Amino acid sequence: MSPINFAEKLSLFSEHWSPKVIAELNDTQFKLVKFQGDFVWHQHDDTDEAFIVIKGEMQIGFRDREVTVKEGELFVVKKGIEHITRAKHECHAMIIEPRGVVNTGEAGGELTANNDVWI
Amino acid sequence: MSPINFAEKLSLFSEHWSPKVIAELNDTQFKLVKFQGDFVWHQHDDTDEAFIVIKGEMQIGFRDREVTVKEGELFVVKKGIEHITRAKHECHAMIIEPRGVVNTGEAGGELTANNDVWI
Repeated sequence: MSPINFAEKLSLFSEHWSPKVIAELNDTQFKLVKFQGDFVWHQHDDTDEAFIVIKGEMQIGFRDREVTVKEGELFVVKKGIEHITRAKHECHAMIIEPRGVVNTGEAGGELTANNDVWI
Repeated sequence: MSPINFAEKLSLFSEHWSPKVIAELNDTQFKLVKFQGDFVWHQHDDTDEAFIVIKGEMQIGFRDREVTVKEGELFVVKKGIEHITRAKHECHAMIIEPRGVVNTGEAGGELTANNDVWI
């Protein structure tokens, strides 16, 4: 029951593409993640997925366009929409999505992370 | 389907204690709010409520203690817990909670805001 400081939590890990849970709101989780480069194309058929950029900027690619999300911005990927996340330089972001969501959705592969690691 | 910039959205209103919805993640809403002074004691019997401070700092008072939440910090008030929000100086925050939650919970009163105003 203490406030959760994003910078402090982000200082506790360095690996990329491995979201860490920091809090829950009912069944929804807040996760911090660091990444650079390209993720994999995937989708989440049962849920929306929100990204808030805390440091740097990221791209979210769709099959027909790409958006850039910067520090202090929020973007919600609606459920069922195929997308890929990317960052030229290391980006720190918060992901907000229901408990149990796997980062690679139905795509699987080597970037699939344990989806319930708390820090 | 554009990124939502917090500073830009916050520039669109000035009134206090009147949360504005900026996005939805499934049935959960992201709301921006500005406030100063004391809110009212209340609780939400059916849901947790998350606060992220974007500018300034806020206090969340409980019957047995008080926490200060600063810029870049998150705090989740668990459901059923009586609390009051306060800020000495104007604070800008994001509230994350399910669609339909009334800001004053069961307490009502003049600070009760329309709970589904989008900006």
